[in-house]
Amino acid sequence: MADKITPRGVDYSQWYIDIVLNAKLADYSPVKGCMVMRPRGYAIWERIQAEMDGRFKETGHQNVYFPMLIPMSFLKKEAEHVEGFAPELAVVTHGGGEELDEPLVIRPTSETIIWAKYKDWIQSYRDLPLLYNQWCSVLRWEKRTRLFLRTAEFLWQEGHTAHETEKEAVDETLKMLEVYRDVCERHLCLPVIAGRKSDAEKFAGAVATYCIEGMMQDKKALQAGTSHFLGQNFGKAFDVQFQSREGKLEYAWATSWGTSTRLIGAVIMTHSDDKGLVLPPSLAPEQAVIVPILKKDTQAAVLAYCGKVLAELKAAGVRAILDADDTQSPGWKFAQHEMNGVPLRIEIGPRDMEAGKAMVARRDTGEKAPYEVAGLPQAALALLGSIQKNLYDKALAFRKENTRSVADRAELLAFYGADKGEDAGTTGATGGFAEGGWCGSRECEAALKAETKVTIRCLPLDAQEGVSGSCCLCGAPAKHRAVFARNY
Amino acid sequence: MADKITPRGVDYSQWYIDIVLNAKLADYSPVKGCMVMRPRGYAIWERIQAEMDGRFKETGHQNVYFPMLIPMSFLKKEAEHVEGFAPELAVVTHGGGEELDEPLVIRPTSETIIWAKYKDWIQSYRDLPLLYNQWCSVLRWEKRTRLFLRTAEFLWQEGHTAHETEKEAVDETLKMLEVYRDVCERHLCLPVIAGRKSDAEKFAGAVATYCIEGMMQDKKALQAGTSHFLGQNFGKAFDVQFQSREGKLEYAWATSWGTSTRLIGAVIMTHSDDKGLVLPPSLAPEQAVIVPILKKDTQAAVLAYCGKVLAELKAAGVRAILDADDTQSPGWKFAQHEMNGVPLRIEIGPRDMEAGKAMVARRDTGEKAPYEVAGLPQAALALLGSIQKNLYDKALAFRKENTRSVADRAELLAFYGADKGEDAGTTGATGGFAEGGWCGSRECEAALKAETKVTIRCLPLDAQEGVSGSCCLCGAPAKHRAVFARNY
Repeated sequence: MADKITPRGVDYSQWYIDIVLNAKLADYSPVKGCMVMRPRGYAIWERIQAEMDGRFKETGHQNVYFPMLIPMSFLKKEAEHVEGFAPELAVVTHGGGEELDEPLVIRPTSETIIWAKYKDWIQSYRDLPLLYNQWCSVLRWEKRTRLFLRTAEFLWQEGHTAHETEKEAVDETLKMLEVYRDVCERHLCLPVIAGRKSDAEKFAGAVATYCIEGMMQDKKALQAGTSHFLGQNFGKAFDVQFQSREGKLEYAWATSWGTSTRLIGAVIMTHSDDKGLVLPPSLAPEQAVIVPILKKDTQAAVLAYCGKVLAELKAAGVRAILDADDTQSPGWKFAQHEMNGVPLRIEIGPRDMEAGKAMVARRDTGEKAPYEVAGLPQAALALLGSIQKNLYDKALAFRKENTRSVADRAELLAFYGADKGEDAGTTGATGGFAEGGWCGSRECEAALKAETKVTIRCLPLDAQEGVSGSCCLCGAPAKHRAVFARNY
Repeated sequence: MADKITPRGVDYSQWYIDIVLNAKLADYSPVKGCMVMRPRGYAIWERIQAEMDGRFKETGHQNVYFPMLIPMSFLKKEAEHVEGFAPELAVVTHGGGEELDEPLVIRPTSETIIWAKYKDWIQSYRDLPLLYNQWCSVLRWEKRTRLFLRTAEFLWQEGHTAHETEKEAVDETLKMLEVYRDVCERHLCLPVIAGRKSDAEKFAGAVATYCIEGMMQDKKALQAGTSHFLGQNFGKAFDVQFQSREGKLEYAWATSWGTSTRLIGAVIMTHSDDKGLVLPPSLAPEQAVIVPILKKDTQAAVLAYCGKVLAELKAAGVRAILDADDTQSPGWKFAQHEMNGVPLRIEIGPRDMEAGKAMVARRDTGEKAPYEVAGLPQAALALLGSIQKNLYDKALAFRKENTRSVADRAELLAFYGADKGEDAGTTGATGGFAEGGWCGSRECEAALKAETKVTIRCLPLDAQEGVSGSCCLCGAPAKHRAVFARNY
């Protein structure tokens, strides 16, 4: 199996696709631009969902479900919103054998249908806040797709909240960004930079978009989640007014925020290697696999012994499996489970059995060492914790190594090399994150993108106090500190 | 609030809608035929999902996700399937601003797109069985809709399995029917009859459809879940052949099975009363509500005391809330929480506090009794268990009372009254389940339906041995025992 994976250094894009297909996370679908999530991929999504959903509930949110079909006229009520989404819509024109009076679109996002309903539910400040979230699929027509990272249909969660005051809505926006950051860093082992988008990159209909950005192994940025402060834009578009504490009629303030199955792509790209998938133990469908070394005379005894070890691991809370298949060699199985990203491999042969030992190999470092079987469950839990930490630390170190502070245009261009980024996806040879001052002008930003495909990923939240110096693009006084990168 | 609910005896349909809207389980959507699931309704769905999903995993199934869009040509590959679903399809004709080469339909069910992919995944008997399930929404265009019970879009799970042998597939079909029966009876407190559908009522594309049928309070039947043995119909339609153990090429055998948000409608209709929603404690978002009796002098002390009781209830695993709102009277709150179907109400006033007692009222029976606060968590758990059991027993007794064995046509017609069923939905006055012999003829069945709207709900699995006697419709020798009813 292992030889099926194209090395990262040869073709990074192909390496990624090889892992997704060979580890059976997802597959192409007969419908262009859509994908099929296979059991091992969906199991990762279920763990991400469980963690996110728990955090949403802890922070007072409730789940709801709104229809997947939205009247076209709803989208048109918010001018920027429809302009942003119109090119990506899938349109239902016929239903039940008849042409529809008004075409319906499959939701690309649900602000419009949700705010149309909020009008019915919000009359007074006593009805606020509404802190709702939904788990569903959305559809945005895409021509160039890539499994998990960009598909026409994808699974996500979208939070939609309504508030009494601007401050409350801004606080909510940042609170959910922080939830995303924390889940990504702790649970996905994905270090991210939290920041605000430039106006050119913000959500269609938002006043301000906040995001978290991670660095992939090809040094490109991947946007892992967004949280939008929508101001009163949707409140006004859908006429959602409420009686305030002062007895006045006011428009409700809105936020929305989302993360998607794209996170699975981010996890794969951040941690995997040329042997295949590497997964944070917290996300791995199987955390440990026992591979028995089977020989004719001792096969039955070793299998029985491994069964006992399996039961002990499970009892301790380790998601363990036993690969008892006697038609494949241990070596074939090692490669297979490495491909699948199982964090720990436990080898037990007849001599190990007699000695009360097991050989344990870590997927992340490849380190292999003997352990007493008596203490194996505790050792396995400790190793899983160590892998979880190591993956995060390694990803953070990689990002730091590939982040450079730039003072001016020459430095920035040198950092990204002479090429225009066409090769970055293949060899991952150039670039990374550049940090520098930015004057805030759309023109500066657009010119850079046109020339190099480098964009402003975000204005990091922790670097906007007392900005000084000059714009690394034009030399004018800097208004912000920005992080630049090529991106997915 | 309570006066907003139309009594069952006056208008059963309106009673149902009043409960759904007033208990804020769901609401109408701006898109015709679709509904919005509100937090209290969605929370019930989450509990049903968790229970079902756990059972699916225990029985070896894995979750996957297939695209929501299906090429129209796929549906046409199975002749009965397309004939059954064509009238209900929503058709996407435009995507990304262009007309599509081939129209896509929003999945009404996913057999076709899943079996198109199974062709890639199944080559040998070693690849079998595939035991997959997905949680998603489906769309079947409907003109006459009713919240939860019949909407164009609904949430459901659909299991799709592929097997080596006919026997294995039949066993799987019946195993999943049994999972459904068990979850409905234990968890939803909904007694059901498990049986096979007549050929006229089976799924479009199935060899045999099995179902569970419950009786609602208007004595109509509601189909709560179906499990289909699909034979090799989809294997052949999508050319899914595998190398058998004997080295021959054979078509894979299939099953599919589904339950949906309709179950929420069944729960509401089975247990609720004229005061509002009644919920099995296992499904209730809140299992107990503490209503403090607030008086000026003692308000702070009583609230603090109630907070302590709340913490103890929660620590014991009771999903409890405290209604500390001081702008509403206790009486108003009582009615409100009855409407919402909270299984236990705990009243604590200043004198209760001093005596270390609390008054506890059961939602199901209305019984009210004082309890020692010291033992309240244990008492509450016992009461919740008792309510869970009582709801099931009551529903079962109701079904038995309203089930009659009929020998011939005259008895059957008398049981359903002279009317043709138009009023049954309003007053629920006539009928119930009739059990009788059936000759197996489609004509007998069709004539009955045309005349009375009564249909064969199923041929109960536990009543098909050694059938004797005559068909209660035509007097010919009976081949089956059938259960007849009007239905949702």
